[in-house]
Amino acid sequence: MENFQLNAMLSKDSIELLELPLCKLLLMNDNQYPWFVLVPKVNDVQDIYQLDWQDQQQLLNESSMLSEILMQKFQGKKMNVAALGNICPQLHLHHIVRFEEDKAWPKPIWGLFPMKPYNEAEIEKIKGMLLPALKLILDK
Amino acid sequence: MENFQLNAMLSKDSIELLELPLCKLLLMNDNQYPWFVLVPKVNDVQDIYQLDWQDQQQLLNESSMLSEILMQKFQGKKMNVAALGNICPQLHLHHIVRFEEDKAWPKPIWGLFPMKPYNEAEIEKIKGMLLPALKLILDK
Repeated sequence: MENFQLNAMLSKDSIELLELPLCKLLLMNDNQYPWFVLVPKVNDVQDIYQLDWQDQQQLLNESSMLSEILMQKFQGKKMNVAALGNICPQLHLHHIVRFEEDKAWPKPIWGLFPMKPYNEAEIEKIKGMLLPALKLILDK
Repeated sequence: MENFQLNAMLSKDSIELLELPLCKLLLMNDNQYPWFVLVPKVNDVQDIYQLDWQDQQQLLNESSMLSEILMQKFQGKKMNVAALGNICPQLHLHHIVRFEEDKAWPKPIWGLFPMKPYNEAEIEKIKGMLLPALKLILDK
């Protein structure tokens, strides 16, 4: 969408990984969990049900594609998928790969521990793991 | 689905409100928040992306219909929609109406406070608020 602007809070805490047809894909800058966010490039929408039906389906499509690739690549125990947005009002959909060994298991991760930023090598590693697989699907 | 059985943890903590085409609609037995759960009547599925594409779309459909009615009826500030399932492995999608005045705001609600069960009158009130509107849409 023209004139779409990523919310400043999301922007500050994340690395932009990829443009999908509907969403920006962000990596949250916290190396404690594989934590990704999809942000539909649509202005002034807070909740999923407020999107046009076509955009809702596309969001589901992008979310499921992302979830499947994340579980394949990270070999997690469980996906956590959530639209909360009590603090940042711009609609965004969290995708977190959870492990029984992770710091917060089995609790939800939000607000438990301060974020621990990635270093450049870690970010490049994640990009190398995910972007080729995602682009392959998008180019189909 | 034949032979579908609601997970015992979900069953213990909730009141069954309605059968939707794909999901059971549960009211979580906690009067601190309007907190509802959709459980697809499909066995052995943990994550949304593992459902057939048609069931994924139906889940989205039921989730958005429910979200819209909940926000209309409860006049909340924000919907929280989440598939976590780290403890109860049966796929279930939380829908919580949030208010700036609620006990946990702006944090996610899970695990913060012990559940406070409804009394019968409160349950009947919620059924009266929601079931006619939901049935009207389902019968369309």
